[in-house]
Amino acid sequence: MELKKIGELITSNRILLGPGPSNYDPRVMKAMTSPLISHLDPEIYPILDETVELLKYLFKTKNEVTLPMSGTGTAGGETAFTNVIEQGDKAIVCLNGFFSERNIEMIERCGGEVIRIDAEWGKPIDIEEIERTLKANPDTKILSMTHGETSTGVLTPLEEVGKFCSQTSTLFVVDAVPTLGGMDVDVDGWNIDICYSGTQKCLSAPPAMAPITFSQKAIDVIKNRKTKIQTLYLDAIELMRHWGKERKYHHTLPIIMIYALREALRIIYEEGLEERFKRHEEVSQLLKTHLTDMGFKLFAQEGYRLPMLTAVELPEGLSEREIITKLLKEYNIEIGGGFGKLAGKLLRVGLMGYSCSKQNVYYLISALKEIMS
Amino acid sequence: MELKKIGELITSNRILLGPGPSNYDPRVMKAMTSPLISHLDPEIYPILDETVELLKYLFKTKNEVTLPMSGTGTAGGETAFTNVIEQGDKAIVCLNGFFSERNIEMIERCGGEVIRIDAEWGKPIDIEEIERTLKANPDTKILSMTHGETSTGVLTPLEEVGKFCSQTSTLFVVDAVPTLGGMDVDVDGWNIDICYSGTQKCLSAPPAMAPITFSQKAIDVIKNRKTKIQTLYLDAIELMRHWGKERKYHHTLPIIMIYALREALRIIYEEGLEERFKRHEEVSQLLKTHLTDMGFKLFAQEGYRLPMLTAVELPEGLSEREIITKLLKEYNIEIGGGFGKLAGKLLRVGLMGYSCSKQNVYYLISALKEIMS
Repeated sequence: MELKKIGELITSNRILLGPGPSNYDPRVMKAMTSPLISHLDPEIYPILDETVELLKYLFKTKNEVTLPMSGTGTAGGETAFTNVIEQGDKAIVCLNGFFSERNIEMIERCGGEVIRIDAEWGKPIDIEEIERTLKANPDTKILSMTHGETSTGVLTPLEEVGKFCSQTSTLFVVDAVPTLGGMDVDVDGWNIDICYSGTQKCLSAPPAMAPITFSQKAIDVIKNRKTKIQTLYLDAIELMRHWGKERKYHHTLPIIMIYALREALRIIYEEGLEERFKRHEEVSQLLKTHLTDMGFKLFAQEGYRLPMLTAVELPEGLSEREIITKLLKEYNIEIGGGFGKLAGKLLRVGLMGYSCSKQNVYYLISALKEIMS
Repeated sequence: MELKKIGELITSNRILLGPGPSNYDPRVMKAMTSPLISHLDPEIYPILDETVELLKYLFKTKNEVTLPMSGTGTAGGETAFTNVIEQGDKAIVCLNGFFSERNIEMIERCGGEVIRIDAEWGKPIDIEEIERTLKANPDTKILSMTHGETSTGVLTPLEEVGKFCSQTSTLFVVDAVPTLGGMDVDVDGWNIDICYSGTQKCLSAPPAMAPITFSQKAIDVIKNRKTKIQTLYLDAIELMRHWGKERKYHHTLPIIMIYALREALRIIYEEGLEERFKRHEEVSQLLKTHLTDMGFKLFAQEGYRLPMLTAVELPEGLSEREIITKLLKEYNIEIGGGFGKLAGKLLRVGLMGYSCSKQNVYYLISALKEIMS
C-alpha cells in the first residue's frame, strides 16, 4: 500500500438497522467535540459521577459498583466472568444462540467448569430446567443468561430465574448487550448480580464502552476470592478506585467516549424509560407486521421476541447476501444476516435507540419491496 | 444527585502539557464526526487496512500482526503479557519507575514468575546487568523494558538489549507508550518482539486504543502455548482474524476511535518521522533550557532524558499541588506532578505530538514565572 495515497476519511451515511451499532443522535456527536481533558483533571470527576448516576437510572439499580468499562460489549462479558470465576468454579450457562455460546469460551478461559443448559436457537430457555440444574448443583458460582440473543432475536425472561438465584449463593449474571436502553432491565427488581451491556446498541452511543453493574453479593464474592483476578485492565474493584471516591489512577480513560455516553444517557433520561421502551415496542411491532405481511416468517418463538432485534427466515430462492448487499449499496441501509450456524438463512433487523423510528421502518420495507419485486 | 440537573457537557479548553493525554489536531476531531459505519460494513475494511499500514510505518516494522487493541495503554501492556505468559513462565522485568513496576502486577496475574532488575528512579537500567541476568536464566520467556518512563522522564536505550535477546529464545517486550510517535521506536531494527503504545500521547489521538505489534518469533511462541490465553478480548491472534484477511467477527470495534487514530497517523506520515522526532527534540530542549535557567533541576540522569516528558525536582518551599492547581485554574494549562513514591516532589511536563510546540513552551514558562514571582 502506498501510504501517501491514504486520503481523507470518507464514510457513507448509513442507516444502521443491523444488530448494532445503531445511529446516534447528533447531540452525541456534538458532545464528542467538547475539548479533551485529562482523566485526572478535577473537571472530569463530576462528569464521571453523572455518567454513573445516569447508568444506575438505566440499570434500575442502587449498586455502588456501576460503571462503563473501557472496552466494547465483549469486554463487558469478560469483565463479568473474570472478576468472579476462579479455577474450578462451576458455571451454569444457558445457551440459545451465538453470544451465549461465546460466554462458555470466556468462562473456560477463566478456569470455570461449565454446565450447559441448551435450548434450540430461536427458542427461550426452559425455566424449569434451570431450577432443576441449579438445585442439583448448589455449589454453582454463577448462572449466566443472555437476556436478548442478538443472533436469533429471542428474548429470555429473567425475573423468575433471578428470584431463584437470590435464594442461593449463586450469582445471577446477565448479558443485556442488546436490551439495555430498549426494554426493561430491572437489575435490583430482578435480583441480577452482574449485568453488562454495550454502548452501541439501544444506548445509541458509539461502540467503545461496556456499562456494567455488580450487586453487593457479587462484590462480596470478589472480595473473598482466593486468587487475584487474572487481568488488571478488567479488574472492576481496582477500576472503581478511579471511578469512585478514591480518585486513584487505574488506566487512562477513553474520555471522548465517556462524553458521548453521558450525552446518550441524558437523551435517554429526557425521553424517559417507559416512553423509550414503548417506542421500541411499537416501532418493532410495525416492522414485524410489515415483514409478516410480506410473507417472512419470524424466527423467534411467539411471546419471546425481542423488540430491538427482529430475525426473519429467508424464503427459498432468496439470497441473504444479495438482499443485504443491495440494501447497503442501493439504499444505504445496513441490516444483518444469519450469524454462526444460521449464516445465510436469516435477515436480522435492528431497531435500536436513535435508529428505532417509524421513518426507518417505512424506508426499509419500501426498499425490501423494490428489491424483491 | 438530581438527574434532571445534569446539563449539557461543558469542558475547559485545556492546553494539555501533562504526561498524557495530549491535545489533538482539529483534523482528528473532524474525522471523528464522519458517519458511523459498522465494524462489519465492507467500507470499514480498507479503513482498518490503512490504519494498520500507517501503524507499521510508525513502528518501523513489517510484522503482520500489528493493530490497535480496543483499550487504552494499560490494555496494551496486558495484551503483550497475557498473550505470551503462561503459568510458571519466567519474566525478567527492568524497573525504574511506576509504570515498569506495574508490569510486574500484570505479569504475575498471568501466572508469570518475575526476576527484577532494579535501577534507581531517575536512572536508566544497567545494560550489563540485563545481559548477566539473561545469561543466568536462559529459560526466560520474556524480558520487559519500559522505553520511556512517564513517571520519571527517563529514557532507556533498547538497541543493545534487543540484539542480545535476539540471540536467545527470550522475547523482548517493550512499553513504548509515551515514546511512539515522538522519537525513534525501531521495532524491526532493534529486534523488539512485542511493542505496545497508547493513542493519547505522541500520536495525539484521543485515549481509547493501544497500538501493538508482534514479531514472528512472538507469534510462534503464542501458537505453541500449552494453555489458552486467559482472555478472549485481548487475544491478539483471534482479533487479527477480524483485522486481517479473514474478516471474522471478534468484537465490536470502537469505530469512531479508529477514525481518529487513522487521521492522527496520516498527520504523522505527512510530517514525516524524522521531522517529527526533530521537532520533539528541539521543543523539548527549549523547555529544558528555560526550566534549568529558572533554577529547576532535571530529574532524569543526563544522556537519558526523554524528549516528550520532562521531570524537574521541586526546590524547597514550593508546593507541587499549588503550582499545578494555579496553572490549571488560572492559565488552563495541565501539567503533571510526582507519581507513586515521587508524589509531591516533581513537576512533569509533557510535550507530546500536537501539544509539542514552541508556543506552548513559551506560554508555560511565562505562566510559571508569574506564579513563582
